[in-house]
Amino acid sequence: MSDTTAAPDMLSWTCPAPLRDRPRVVMGHGGGGVMSAELVEQVFLPAFGQVAPGGLTDSAAVELGGARLAFSTDSFVVRPLFFPGGSIGDLAVNGTVNDLAMSGARAAYLSCGMILEEGVELATVGRVAEALGAAARTAGVRVVTGDTKVVEAGHGDGVYINTSGIGLIPPGVDLRPQRVVPGDVVVVSGAIGLHGVAILSERENLRFEVAIESDCAALGGLVEAMLAVTPDLHVLRDPTRGGLAASLNEIAAASGAGVVVQERAVPVPPPVASACAVLGLDPMYVANEGKLVAFVPRDQADAVLAAMRAHPLGAGAAIIGEAVADHPGMVVARTGLGGTRVVDMPLGEQLPRIC
Amino acid sequence: MSDTTAAPDMLSWTCPAPLRDRPRVVMGHGGGGVMSAELVEQVFLPAFGQVAPGGLTDSAAVELGGARLAFSTDSFVVRPLFFPGGSIGDLAVNGTVNDLAMSGARAAYLSCGMILEEGVELATVGRVAEALGAAARTAGVRVVTGDTKVVEAGHGDGVYINTSGIGLIPPGVDLRPQRVVPGDVVVVSGAIGLHGVAILSERENLRFEVAIESDCAALGGLVEAMLAVTPDLHVLRDPTRGGLAASLNEIAAASGAGVVVQERAVPVPPPVASACAVLGLDPMYVANEGKLVAFVPRDQADAVLAAMRAHPLGAGAAIIGEAVADHPGMVVARTGLGGTRVVDMPLGEQLPRIC
Repeated sequence: MSDTTAAPDMLSWTCPAPLRDRPRVVMGHGGGGVMSAELVEQVFLPAFGQVAPGGLTDSAAVELGGARLAFSTDSFVVRPLFFPGGSIGDLAVNGTVNDLAMSGARAAYLSCGMILEEGVELATVGRVAEALGAAARTAGVRVVTGDTKVVEAGHGDGVYINTSGIGLIPPGVDLRPQRVVPGDVVVVSGAIGLHGVAILSERENLRFEVAIESDCAALGGLVEAMLAVTPDLHVLRDPTRGGLAASLNEIAAASGAGVVVQERAVPVPPPVASACAVLGLDPMYVANEGKLVAFVPRDQADAVLAAMRAHPLGAGAAIIGEAVADHPGMVVARTGLGGTRVVDMPLGEQLPRIC
Repeated sequence: MSDTTAAPDMLSWTCPAPLRDRPRVVMGHGGGGVMSAELVEQVFLPAFGQVAPGGLTDSAAVELGGARLAFSTDSFVVRPLFFPGGSIGDLAVNGTVNDLAMSGARAAYLSCGMILEEGVELATVGRVAEALGAAARTAGVRVVTGDTKVVEAGHGDGVYINTSGIGLIPPGVDLRPQRVVPGDVVVVSGAIGLHGVAILSERENLRFEVAIESDCAALGGLVEAMLAVTPDLHVLRDPTRGGLAASLNEIAAASGAGVVVQERAVPVPPPVASACAVLGLDPMYVANEGKLVAFVPRDQADAVLAAMRAHPLGAGAAIIGEAVADHPGMVVARTGLGGTRVVDMPLGEQLPRIC
């Protein structure tokens, strides 16, 4: 643990009420669920001097020199560094590219900040860098600025990476959960749960009959194909930490609409379902790294779905539900047996350090 | 140390020749000197698929939507988190704001990626966030997007922060070491060595007769004042890791000019000189966080110096040398006794984790 002695003139700091029963950071604060949101809303936003009305999105839309830009950042601490279907280098590119894509922007430039742990093999750093470079070329984005820090052995975990990215938001595109209205159709771009299960099986050395690989991919092209049908998509999210459940809850909370999901329509591959059953996980809460969920005006849904299915990264796209006027802010799943269950916002994350 | 097992299909990676005698990362790879440069040039640039001709600068100049932007990133791993004159929160803002300022850009927007260590006190995180927010307000920059990850105890050090930033480069401004020509005057904005000595004295619990505080500050306003005299400054650098010696060597190497420094003209405060003498450090190699060095056309030097001295952050500005046609790429100091010594590029960093 760090030396956290405050300078003598440092004011004391009072923990906001919702956080007081946990005076120290726990893994769940990084899980993308309720605890992450509390930390951001109670600590970071007040300190940084701004409150984003209607919540936070994965990237900020800003104006600079007359250009409308998306600007996003993500740090990557995944363990292990290499896993079936990808590596921290792939995640570092695709995670930020996807955050930009969720505001409709095609990523143009990335930064890359590495925090290396003393003693990590240069060959490991080299392989990570090559994976990162290859992913950037695939995504059509350029890494233009970087920084490297080294911390003593025992203060890192091989390689941590931050990438930030900027891209142009096309004219007429305005993707925000506040734009969701009852009647919007909810579409996912394909099978869910692959990334989280791939990481966990690698970490725990589990072997399933069918190998499960991360779906890690850059979604800029898929989003462009969708926006070519109509710039009037309402909101996009990549369901990473906290899975589909977290994304749908964020959208419901920020929009004030309710969300109904037809459980049978959610594309969960049988190997993911089996693995989740064994591991006691709910696929709705498992992280993805190459999928998106879209809220689409009803009259555009078929055309958007067709465009998605015509794209390699949307071949498994499916309509899974709709926005409703009932139960505002709440996500409800209709089960295969005709029942109903509430899909809560996760508290923390079932699997720490999956990205 | 991380699990660094490569996926089976991962190609083997061959360490480039200059790095081969050290197959693992050492602290010096993060020091901003020769070893850092080798890592970037031999590993990162080839992997990322681009070679910046004439070397790297602290921020990239990119075009997006017709706007000419500076884009920069920096990770902060300073230890301790709070030190005389500042904190990791101040550094996280000022470091990136200054990187942008060195390309002439006024920082407009920052991202903030936090990697928190499980178990760190929320009060510490809160104080860091408040320092960061206060520094952003002072610098006139907005934090608009963020990310938080948590790593297990023993895989971090309380709080690591990455900030990235974007800003507009004013028309007519073109700050690059390649623009340096023999005859250019070398100006520093004030006393050097304060940040590094402040960190080291805090870390080692050293007490000097006169308290030494970090000079950590945002330089955007000072740069604006200098550019108001003439947009034709040739190059600016903030001498952080590796100190003035590293910045001057980078400029000499990239420009092909030689640099001569009049040692007596370099503003080293007596307490810094005393501390360096005790600690066996050379002030030329000690990090600063609120100073800049400028190469200015000779006919503009007096006016630029006057503008700097009229700004609170340039009150101690001084002409310390010049660019020369002799000894291209080399930095030479004329000592007080009339002798000459070569000021080498540092290999690593005398004081790890000072930013």
